[in-house]
Amino acid sequence: MNIYDLTVPQLIKMLKNIDKWLGAAIVHAEKKKFDVNILMEARLAPDQFAFDQQVQSACDHAKFLAGRVTGKASPAHPDTETTFDQLRSRTASVITYLETFKPEDFAGVEDRKISLPWMEGKWMRGDEYVTQLALPNFYFHTVTAYAILRHNGVELGKADFLG
Amino acid sequence: MNIYDLTVPQLIKMLKNIDKWLGAAIVHAEKKKFDVNILMEARLAPDQFAFDQQVQSACDHAKFLAGRVTGKASPAHPDTETTFDQLRSRTASVITYLETFKPEDFAGVEDRKISLPWMEGKWMRGDEYVTQLALPNFYFHTVTAYAILRHNGVELGKADFLG
Repeated sequence: MNIYDLTVPQLIKMLKNIDKWLGAAIVHAEKKKFDVNILMEARLAPDQFAFDQQVQSACDHAKFLAGRVTGKASPAHPDTETTFDQLRSRTASVITYLETFKPEDFAGVEDRKISLPWMEGKWMRGDEYVTQLALPNFYFHTVTAYAILRHNGVELGKADFLG
Repeated sequence: MNIYDLTVPQLIKMLKNIDKWLGAAIVHAEKKKFDVNILMEARLAPDQFAFDQQVQSACDHAKFLAGRVTGKASPAHPDTETTFDQLRSRTASVITYLETFKPEDFAGVEDRKISLPWMEGKWMRGDEYVTQLALPNFYFHTVTAYAILRHNGVELGKADFLG
């Protein structure tokens, strides 16, 4: 067992859950007769990322986790989504990318030095990056996206969070 | 490196962060002249756990993660907290418990069978329990607690989440 087993299958599962939440929001908006894309700008506090940025960030932390610790190039996503359908495409694109990884790609990750754009020459060990940054950030944006939908009445429950 | 390294130090760090958020809420309430314990019942949706239950659940998932995979008894917490100060005591109690673990307590966890109260004779491997249930649940309740405070105007930002 290595860090692959503790991360990639679970990230894929959670991204598939996010896709279901997006689908549930679309159904909810149709039922209540409003444009679901109004929720793209929903947020829980005025100085917090809106829903679209929460989903984009969850996708990015999943993608960067795998890309950074293995050194395998990640697909670019310029944050141009304006609709729920586009967020679903982005989520699907990251799932497809994550599915290209195999456990052996993650061999020795715990000894690898990870440099992050904002760290100016400093580095973290691969396992520290995964445990202290990538996973907490991934769950932060994933749970916040879920909370914004719950706050807006989308019919979701804990089982939909865990999948 | 084993599952200890990927979980216990980060759980302790996040519980210490939760304690800081509780402290920030107390400061915010003093400034705005309201009883901070009103926030114990705050929630983002009417059919969602309130703030007190989010913190209690985060504490429980951290405690059970370590207790269940190592077979080491966990302290009992009967969910009787009615104040922020009591939530801080509970968080402190779980931190103290987690600090009793050593990496060697987690040796072979990935081959251990974990039975959960509601699984009726079924089991999961230790690494599956950690990756697919304990950590997602821990972050679910941790991030939701944070989101409830943010939604209620407590002065917190992303750096306070990560610690």
